[in-house]
Amino acid sequence: MPDRGKLIVLSGPSGAGKSTVIQRVRAARPNLRFSVSATTRQPRTGEVEGEDYYFVSELRFLEMLARGELLENAQYVGNRYGTPRAPIEEHLNQGRDVLLDIEVQGAAQVKAAMPEAVTIFLSPPNLETLRQRLVQRGTDSPEVIEGRLQQARVELLLAKEYDYIVINDDAAVAASEISAIITAEKCKTADRIQLIEVQLQ
Amino acid sequence: MPDRGKLIVLSGPSGAGKSTVIQRVRAARPNLRFSVSATTRQPRTGEVEGEDYYFVSELRFLEMLARGELLENAQYVGNRYGTPRAPIEEHLNQGRDVLLDIEVQGAAQVKAAMPEAVTIFLSPPNLETLRQRLVQRGTDSPEVIEGRLQQARVELLLAKEYDYIVINDDAAVAASEISAIITAEKCKTADRIQLIEVQLQ
Repeated sequence: MPDRGKLIVLSGPSGAGKSTVIQRVRAARPNLRFSVSATTRQPRTGEVEGEDYYFVSELRFLEMLARGELLENAQYVGNRYGTPRAPIEEHLNQGRDVLLDIEVQGAAQVKAAMPEAVTIFLSPPNLETLRQRLVQRGTDSPEVIEGRLQQARVELLLAKEYDYIVINDDAAVAASEISAIITAEKCKTADRIQLIEVQLQ
Repeated sequence: MPDRGKLIVLSGPSGAGKSTVIQRVRAARPNLRFSVSATTRQPRTGEVEGEDYYFVSELRFLEMLARGELLENAQYVGNRYGTPRAPIEEHLNQGRDVLLDIEVQGAAQVKAAMPEAVTIFLSPPNLETLRQRLVQRGTDSPEVIEGRLQQARVELLLAKEYDYIVINDDAAVAASEISAIITAEKCKTADRIQLIEVQLQ
């Protein structure tokens, strides 16, 4: 039986550069799987069931919730979103690591439901850099940017709840640190001791 | 002020391939420093003071011991060996990571003296491979090899006391795992949280 995989929970404020860093981690670790959310919102053009989301009815979502089938859930603009536990468990049991990209409240729910989850907070180097990145992205109005910065401050206050903090000053360095964390977690004695114990039988 | 460095304690039975793995870790992390032991034995030809060992008199050694200047100490074939704390503290305070290559009893003493030390046990993939490696090395008699295997079993029983276990099946993989552990330890929230806190002031 393969070693159980690791569930890696990654959070970070909007503008911290999470997508770029995740792309690089994905390139470095092709076996890493990504958690797919369930949602009650309608699929957009091009979105693939089971890849972008599991698209479910309101009734089915509530059923999943009631049965404890979701590691976390939230409502956003009238739609429900949640992380189904079963596909993650299946990956982990088959020895595959899973990355879950989720905001801070969801991360806390996941950690409560699965304390073995390894939580990583991706932080911008500082709030001024975050502001510059949001401005350069050019998608948000000044008011929205101010709102995101306020939200970032709230999220940074929760960074201390995470197991690891990665500062995204350079995306390559940040990605290699995340990859190193996954590798190191797989070397922890609790996970490896059985390989020693079989030698001593 | 730079972040404090990490003290990495590496142990593993004779024949586990520690020297080869350490060489590779050293190549990958040129800033990693190595702890230098103090000893009462005579220098051999070519050995350099402060590089191979700190060569000290019996009186000086006992003085260091009495003053708590040694993180661990042991006697071996009539000579005393110990790990001076001061040079390690100096490296750590200047942000340099230090690797301490030491047997299991010494590692336990170091962990007791400096609980922040990160301990890694390097294991052979199995005892049969260890036997083959010791035979191929060609330096030991069959009796000595049997003794080393017995000693290895005793050491493997102590692997569970370590923070991490690295299995040396392939030296390149083992070295990259040790390097990943060092990187990951430097990302732990306790070490990084101040970088977040300064942003929120």
